[in-house]
Parts: sequence; C-alpha cells; structure tokens
Amino acid sequence: MEAGLFTANNVWMMVCTALVFFMHLGFSFLEIGLTRQKNTVNILFKNVFIITVGLLLYYIGGFNLMYPGFEEGDAGILKFAGFGIAAPEGGMTPEYASGGYTWWTDFLFQGMFAATAATIVSGAVAERVKLGSFMVFTIIYVGLVYPIVGAWKWGGGWLDGLGFYDFAGSTLVHSVGGWGALIAIYLLGARIGKFGEDGKPKAIPGHNLPLAAAGVLILWLGWFGFNGGSVLSADPELTSLVLVTTCLAAAAGGVSAFVTSFLKYKNFDLTMFLNGILGGLVGITAGADQMTPNEAVIIGLIAGVVIVFGVALIDKLKLDDPVGAVAVHLICGIWGTLAVGIFGAMAGFDQFLVQLAGVGAAAAFCSITAFVILFAVKKVSGLRVSETEELEGLDIHEHGMDAYADFRMNQH
Amino acid sequence: MEAGLFTANNVWMMVCTALVFFMHLGFSFLEIGLTRQKNTVNILFKNVFIITVGLLLYYIGGFNLMYPGFEEGDAGILKFAGFGIAAPEGGMTPEYASGGYTWWTDFLFQGMFAATAATIVSGAVAERVKLGSFMVFTIIYVGLVYPIVGAWKWGGGWLDGLGFYDFAGSTLVHSVGGWGALIAIYLLGARIGKFGEDGKPKAIPGHNLPLAAAGVLILWLGWFGFNGGSVLSADPELTSLVLVTTCLAAAAGGVSAFVTSFLKYKNFDLTMFLNGILGGLVGITAGADQMTPNEAVIIGLIAGVVIVFGVALIDKLKLDDPVGAVAVHLICGIWGTLAVGIFGAMAGFDQFLVQLAGVGAAAAFCSITAFVILFAVKKVSGLRVSETEELEGLDIHEHGMDAYADFRMNQH
Amino acid sequence: MEAGLFTANNVWMMVCTALVFFMHLGFSFLEIGLTRQKNTVNILFKNVFIITVGLLLYYIGGFNLMYPGFEEGDAGILKFAGFGIAAPEGGMTPEYASGGYTWWTDFLFQGMFAATAATIVSGAVAERVKLGSFMVFTIIYVGLVYPIVGAWKWGGGWLDGLGFYDFAGSTLVHSVGGWGALIAIYLLGARIGKFGEDGKPKAIPGHNLPLAAAGVLILWLGWFGFNGGSVLSADPELTSLVLVTTCLAAAAGGVSAFVTSFLKYKNFDLTMFLNGILGGLVGITAGADQMTPNEAVIIGLIAGVVIVFGVALIDKLKLDDPVGAVAVHLICGIWGTLAVGIFGAMAGFDQFLVQLAGVGAAAAFCSITAFVILFAVKKVSGLRVSETEELEGLDIHEHGMDAYADFRMNQH
Repeated sequence: MEAGLFTANNVWMMVCTALVFFMHLGFSFLEIGLTRQKNTVNILFKNVFIITVGLLLYYIGGFNLMYPGFEEGDAGILKFAGFGIAAPEGGMTPEYASGGYTWWTDFLFQGMFAATAATIVSGAVAERVKLGSFMVFTIIYVGLVYPIVGAWKWGGGWLDGLGFYDFAGSTLVHSVGGWGALIAIYLLGARIGKFGEDGKPKAIPGHNLPLAAAGVLILWLGWFGFNGGSVLSADPELTSLVLVTTCLAAAAGGVSAFVTSFLKYKNFDLTMFLNGILGGLVGITAGADQMTPNEAVIIGLIAGVVIVFGVALIDKLKLDDPVGAVAVHLICGIWGTLAVGIFGAMAGFDQFLVQLAGVGAAAAFCSITAFVILFAVKKVSGLRVSETEELEGLDIHEHGMDAYADFRMNQH
Repeated sequence: MEAGLFTANNVWMMVCTALVFFMHLGFSFLEIGLTRQKNTVNILFKNVFIITVGLLLYYIGGFNLMYPGFEEGDAGILKFAGFGIAAPEGGMTPEYASGGYTWWTDFLFQGMFAATAATIVSGAVAERVKLGSFMVFTIIYVGLVYPIVGAWKWGGGWLDGLGFYDFAGSTLVHSVGGWGALIAIYLLGARIGKFGEDGKPKAIPGHNLPLAAAGVLILWLGWFGFNGGSVLSADPELTSLVLVTTCLAAAAGGVSAFVTSFLKYKNFDLTMFLNGILGGLVGITAGADQMTPNEAVIIGLIAGVVIVFGVALIDKLKLDDPVGAVAVHLICGIWGTLAVGIFGAMAGFDQFLVQLAGVGAAAAFCSITAFVILFAVKKVSGLRVSETEELEGLDIHEHGMDAYADFRMNQH
Repeated sequence: MEAGLFTANNVWMMVCTALVFFMHLGFSFLEIGLTRQKNTVNILFKNVFIITVGLLLYYIGGFNLMYPGFEEGDAGILKFAGFGIAAPEGGMTPEYASGGYTWWTDFLFQGMFAATAATIVSGAVAERVKLGSFMVFTIIYVGLVYPIVGAWKWGGGWLDGLGFYDFAGSTLVHSVGGWGALIAIYLLGARIGKFGEDGKPKAIPGHNLPLAAAGVLILWLGWFGFNGGSVLSADPELTSLVLVTTCLAAAAGGVSAFVTSFLKYKNFDLTMFLNGILGGLVGITAGADQMTPNEAVIIGLIAGVVIVFGVALIDKLKLDDPVGAVAVHLICGIWGTLAVGIFGAMAGFDQFLVQLAGVGAAAAFCSITAFVILFAVKKVSGLRVSETEELEGLDIHEHGMDAYADFRMNQH
C-alpha cells in the first residue's frame, strides 16, 4: 500500500478516536442536564472515573480479551497485562489491518468505545446509586462483560461465525450498556418522589437544559467518529456513506420524536426531541454502512416513534430512568440491530433471525451478568445511598462539594 | 489520481463537515447566552429544529435545487426527493469533483451549510417569535430561498457567469441569513422594554456569558471547516492559507472591536469583543483564499470597527436584534463580499462592481422573499407571541419547561 | 514525496491546529469553573484577549523570533513584522519541513501554542489581577519571553545543541507558563479570605463545576493535537504512539490523584481528579514519543501523586493559585521534562543532567523576566485591583456586566 493512503487512513482513524473520546463530555452534559443540581458533582465524578479507569482496564486486559486472535500462539484470551509490553510485529505498518491503521490507533479507538457501555448505565442510575458500588460494577462490566460480548462478533467469535452483523455496536455497545442500565434500575428502585402515592410517575425536571442539548449535539458530533471510524479505514465511499446515513437517521429520529410527542402530549418537548436524535443515532449504528440514505431516514423515523413510546413504557413499568437511557440505548439498539435484517443490503428473513439471535444472546449474557454483579454488590455494600443522602444530594455527602457554590437554589 | 490523495482530500472534507455541524452548538450557545433565561428552552428547540429539519430538507430537495447540473438529462432543478435514490455514476470515485471528495461528502458538507442561514435569523428574532411561525419560515427559507441564491453562484448560475466571487459565503450564507434577520426584526418589532418611553435603547443583559463566549469559540473552531472545507479538497497550500487568513481576521476583528468600543464607551465590553471576532470571520469568508495574511488582518480590523458602529446603527433604527446578528452576518457579510474587489488577488474596480451586483441581487431577492413569507405568516397565524407569554417567557408557555429548574431567578 | 502523503500530513497538522485552538475554550471553562461567579466576565475577557492578541503577536514577530533560521541571509531574529509579506520559497511544497506540512500550517500550529503560556498565568492570577496590567504582561510574555525560550530548543538554539529534549513542551510551554504563574501569584498576594487569621488556607469554592470538568475534557481532547501534532507530520507509527501515551498518562494521572487524595483527605475530590488528568497530560508531554505505554502509565501515576502534594505545598507556602496552575503546569512540567532522562528511549544519567539543565535555564530566564515585567508593571500601574473591586467582583467594576444576570446569587 502506498504511504499516502496508509497515512490518510490512520489520520481518519485518529480523528475518529478523538471524536469518540469527546462523546464522554456529551454523555456527562446530557446526564447532568437532565438531573438535579444536587447530584452534579457526583455525576461528573462517575463520568471522569469511567473514561479514565475504562481506558486503563482496556489497556490492562480488555483489548486482548476482545481481540484474542492478534498474537497467535499466545496463551489465549486471558493474557492480562499483556498489551503494554510491545506492539506485534507489523503492527505499525500497512501489513496490519489491511493498512487501515496502526496497532496503537486500533487500541485507542477500541479503548474509547469500551468505556461507553458503563457510561450508559451511569445515566440510568443517577441520583441514587452509591459511588463505590457503581465503581465496582463499572470495573467488572467494562473490564470483562463488554470485551467478552465484543469478542463474540468483533473478535471473530461465534456470533461472527453465525453471520450476525453489527457495524458499530447497536448491540455490542448500546444494548450491552442498555441491559446493564435496565437491570440496575430494577434493582435500585425509583428515586424518592418519582412515583406518587397513586403510583403515577411525576416528572423530576432536569436542572440545566442548555447542557443537556449541548450533550446531544456533542454526542452527534462524536458519532461521526463512532460510526465513521467503524469502517476501520478512510475508504472514501464507505466512510462518507456512513456519515450521511448517520446524520440523516439522527435528523429523522429527532423530528419524528418531536412530532410523535407533540401529537401524543400536545407540547413541544425539547427532551423528547433530543432523545429522538439519540434514538436515531443508536438505531442506524448497526447498519450504517448497509443502508441507503432513504433507508436511513426510515430507520430514524421509526426510532423516533420508538423513543416516545419506549419512555412511556419504562414509566408504566414503574422503572425510573432519569435520562431515558433504556429507551435510547437498549430499545433503539435492539431496533437498529433487527433493522439490518429488514432494510439495506443484507435484508432477508434468515439475516433477521440471525440478528434476533444476536439480540437474544446479548440480552441473556448481559442481563444475567449485570444481575449477578449488582446483586452481589448490593449484598456486600448496598447499591443505594441513604434516604438523607438522596434528599440532600450526593454532592454534599459523597464529595463535600457543591457544583454551583455561588447560586441560590430551590430545594427539591 | 492516486488513492492516497483522494482519500486524504475526502478525510479533510469529512472533518470540515463535522466542524460545520458543530457550529450549530456554537450558534445555540451564543444565542442562549445573550438572551434571558426564560426563553432558553425555546431557543434550544429552534436550533435543534433547524439542524434536523434543515438537513432533511436539503436531502429532499435543496441539494438538487442548488446544484442542478449534477445529473444531466434530468428533469431540471425541481427534482424534489430525487437525491436519496442513488449516487450518480462516478460519484464515489476521483472522477467526481476532481477527486476532492465523494458525492456523499459533498451532500453532507453542503447540507450542514444550508441550515446556517436560518440559524442566523433565529438569533435575531429570539425572545418574541411564535415557534410555529418560525418553523414555517425556516422550512421555506432553508428549503427554497437559500438553495436558489446558492445556485446563482455555487451551482454555476448567472452570478457565477458574471464573475462574482464568494469563496465560502459572506453573501451566499451570511447575508442570506442577515437579510432574513433584518426583515424579520422589522416585522416583529422590538421586545417589550427594549426601548424606553423616550425611545432610547436599553440593554437587556444576556443570562449566561460563559455560554456566549463558548459559542463564539466553537463558531471560530467551526470556521476551520466552513472556510477550510470550501476549498473543496485538502490542497495543502490553499487550505492552510485559508486557515491562516481566517484565524488572523478573527483575531483582528475581535481586537479591533474591543478597542473601538473601549474608545467609544470606555469599558471592556466582552460581547463586543466576541461579536468582533465573528465579524472578522464573516468578513474574511468571501475572500479567504484570495487574501494575503496582511490583507486578512486589515479586513478583520475594519470588520471590528464596522461591528461596533453597526450595532449602534441597528439600535438607532429602533430595531431590536438581541444577538447582533444583523451587524455580524449582514453588514460584515456585505463588507467581506466587497472586500474581494478591494483587496487580494482579484482586486479591481470591475470586480468591485460585480461584487456590488452580487450584494444587490442577494439583497433584493432575500429581502423580498423574506418579507413575502413573513408577511404571509403574520397574516395567517401571527409572528409574535402574546404579551403575557413574552413577559413570562416562552419556555413555560410553548414548552411547559424550565431551562434551569433548580435555580432561583430574578424576575425581568 | 507523493502528493497523497504530503496532503495527509498537512491534513493531520491542520486538524491538530484546530484542536490546540480549542484548548482555549478548555482553559476558559476550567478557570471560570474553579473561581467565583463575580469574576467570570473578567476571566472570559482575559482568555479571549490572550488568544486573539497572542495570535497577532506571533504573526507580527513571535514566529520569526522563535524560528530564526527559516529565511537564511535575513537580518536575524528580530525581523519584526516580517512574516506577513510572503511565504518562503518552497514553503507550500513537500520541500518544506520534509513534507510534514506547509509554511502556513506551521505558522498557525505554532501560533496556537504560543498563547498557551499566558493562559496558564491567567488562571493563577484570577479574581484579583488588574485587567490592563495583565494585558501588558501578556503582550510581553507571549510576544517575547515564550518565543525566546522556544528558540533555544525548537528553533535550533543552544539547548537543542546540548541535546535537551522536550517533545511538545513540558518545559517550553507549560513550565514557561508555570514560572510566570508562580512569580505572579507571589507578587500579587492571596485573594482576600484565602488565608484565615491563623494563616490556614480556606477553600474558596469554584462556582461552576460542570464547566470545570468540561474544560478538562476539552483540554484532554486538545492534547490529541498538542502532542499528536508535535510529531510535525502524520507519521502513522509515531502519531498513534503519541496519542496512546498521552491518553494513558492522562487516565493514570487522574486515577492516581483521586486515589491519593482519597487516602489523604478521605473524600472523593472531583477537582483533584481533574487536575490529576491535567498533571498526567503535562507530565507526558516532554517525552510522549519516547515512552512505551507502560512507561506512560508510570509517568501519569507519579504526576497524579505530585499534583496532590503540589497543591498542598502551594497552600503551605501561603501562595494562592485558584486553579492549581503551578502544580499542574510548573511542577508536572518539570517532572515530565526530567522523566525523559529516567524513562523511555533516551533515559540515562547524562540525558537526565541535560534535562535538568533545560529545567534550570527555563527557571532562571522565565522567573527573572516575569519578575522584571511584573515588578515594573506593579510600579507603574499596580497589579492588583482595589479591595472594593475584589470584594464586589471584577465583572461589575472592569466590565459593567454580570455573567449571569438572571440568576440570584449568594454573596461571598
């Protein structure tokens, strides 16, 4: 391969890595924006913890666990701490990964992905989870569960052999996070005040909608790298198609969610608009390289409707998901994965069944492992902060800090 | 063309597309920051509406309308909904656009531009425009007016034939938006309290200056893509020159505006500094590839002075432009367009006259179409919210939401 | 060199330039977030001043001063205002800089670096420095001191001849800023209320921790360009290694600082976590291309510990550094510079001594020049605002503006 092409490929992948990294600011802003100010420092701490510890864990073991085949003849998938010593032969040349990028770029791009799963959970459990318990969960979920499921498909494992397709992770990233979130909010219970005496859900308004909106726009920007980088090279045709399908699905998801929610609730709901954009993005992720622009718009439009009814469903189940993570990442993740069997170049009944199998496998493995981890943590140290702490805010109790020291606040 | 060069070109254009997309967060932050908290959700909603609907409209028809020549033998410029079906032959290869990028990248880069015109209007009409009426205006302005004017020059139309030059859109983007803004604030009238009984303008302070400053820095960052991508390839000499002229004009515009305003008003006015940066950016946009760095600095310095007097002029005309959009985008857009006839490689009296013709054509077409659209909307559904709604804030009335639920506010 | 490779190199360098530019938003957010709301407009003004004036100064003279060898036969290092006239022969072709980038890209990338040194000082002197005095200091420090020290190594001067190594500026950027910060806070004195009657330091809480955290994440993103661009080409192996070492050091620095501070103070301190990330980034900067990933983690872990004790040391010395700039940029800058002699490909006792010499030379030159400039400014116009102004806030007094006009505030 000519040096120019290899270099251009690697440049694109490094840019995408930076964009996926930046998604962690998007997640932080979204999560802060949609919750109360008294838990802001706690949320920031969790998110900074996830990106730093997640990257180190992926370095220590996750990368090898997820891509076991890179160094043949080695001891197998559990070569913990094996990564750091040296790059494999040819890892810095076009011999590696068909000239798409270097071994170092590969690691860093995948490492930025890894932390995302835990971040999704973080939003769902906000405002009541014990920090230490969440940290333990994060370490195990990012360090083990995510790479194992990833290995099934991206590491060339059994789901890959079956013909399962998940371009950039509707299932492998978003549903993995989504199942963790669902199990976690089931075990945690709702925030105090979320459901009235009559069992009806009450809105607990977010405290900073500019940051929430900024979070979604930053996430959309990050998705240029999340999906665009999943081409694993800068192939002009594929990368540019992927950006088009990604952006059109995002736009369609947003518009569809805002119109659906306007028809259902008769008001212009900004948070539904924002979550619709995210739903469109998650929905297109599994097949971003397989769809025409028209199909991308359809997938986005459906995702937007799914979001509105998904959020209502979570409420009806008496589950409390402050940021809508389950509707966005789990339900739209499933939708996107199945859509690969319905629309696009791979559509077909057999493919649909394979996609369903992948969804089911992730569902079983992630919900069981999440349950086991969280149940064990609950028994050992408890999952939830005390009532006092929840009412007064986690910031003061866990961090001794106030996110907005100079501002006067309403108590609630 | 070698694969490496084509790939590198396309990578740059995709990066620029992402940066132009990110400008929408910049516009949102700037607009929020310079207005009152009670209208924040409304502004965010408008901006998210513009980027999502704008992209879909450009997909449905705008792209074909603006670049009618792409598929010869077709029915002409009104092939609505024609885009999505398939890319043209050669659209993914270096045969297309001299190897500068693929057809998909072309669409997405141009699509991100399209929404900008409406965003400019959004800032000017903030805090009093009816959401539904603004949406209708946006749809027509972004879906039809912007692509038609664009086609005159960038689509190879009559202005292009005349020799008019507008590198990245001082006229085609910024003035198009600016004329819409000017007509809109004329028809809307000033916000309650903007002009005293004596007719003197009163400052209505913005509620979040960190977001306003962040907005300007994000817009500056976005301009790396807005101007840098308008080279339509990654040509090293031209792209890097364009980034240098762009950044120097921005810096010069900011410094000049702050010094001018210090001399005029004897205080260090942050918002004037920020608008000066934007003025410099808008001013260099028409000729960013034609100027030497020295000329870029001069254009920026003049733009900064223009901003200070432009803002004062708008006030004197009893027009109410909460964010200074007319001074920044219209007046500096005109200045930048004319500057191509005064400075740089194309300077000359004939060129100046052609530039003036382009300015005049955009002025006539945009102000008339904006007037017709807005006047019709005003008759049908009204442009302006009720007095109660304006006083209590659009967030509560149009959205049933509060942007900062936990914070205590001053009433005004 | 093939056109594709040259173009890919230049694309990467332009992307890195944009990312380094974006760091100025990161610095602004961090500085705002960790200080009080009454000084927010002032901080924003200073930061916007630094980036605009810094770029213009670098254009007028700094670039030539720092890289005197570019145009041989010229009058030497003091060719002020020489830059803008024309690019040197070959400056736009692969003949220049081994095809790594064009002359324009070179200027802009270096120009974005230049302003950083003053930004570091800005954080340390926040909430009490006179705006005009700070501007004068900035102009001299960015316009003269920074380029002179830079010329010693990056301009091929005596430190370079000695074998001193500083990949991306642990010393040449961060320590230069850090020494300025240290001298400035010594001459300025502590903010009113920082030290009690008993001499014990009291925490003055920052007013916007979401912005502080966002600032650090934006800075981390910017470091992709700061270190990744310091390769001065897109060489796939080196750039990707540099991104890996940079990110691992950041993660390790954050985790190490939060654990150290938890052990020392028994709480989960978000600002220590954030400063630990920055410490790791500054620490890896001198040797980002020389270290293995394992060594990068070790350098980051040590930087995290250094931050916690460094912040405590500054307090003990009765110095008041609101954002921790001295611990982050000066102490970790020294640590990173020395680490090149301890770890990585260049490690060795001789190298360590040379690194020590570079640290010492920067210490002497920067602290003396900073002292002279600041002392002179102090004598002429004073460095510090009046007590009334400090208590009531710089925003009202210097700018006549309120950063958050609609919000109710606590007085302190």
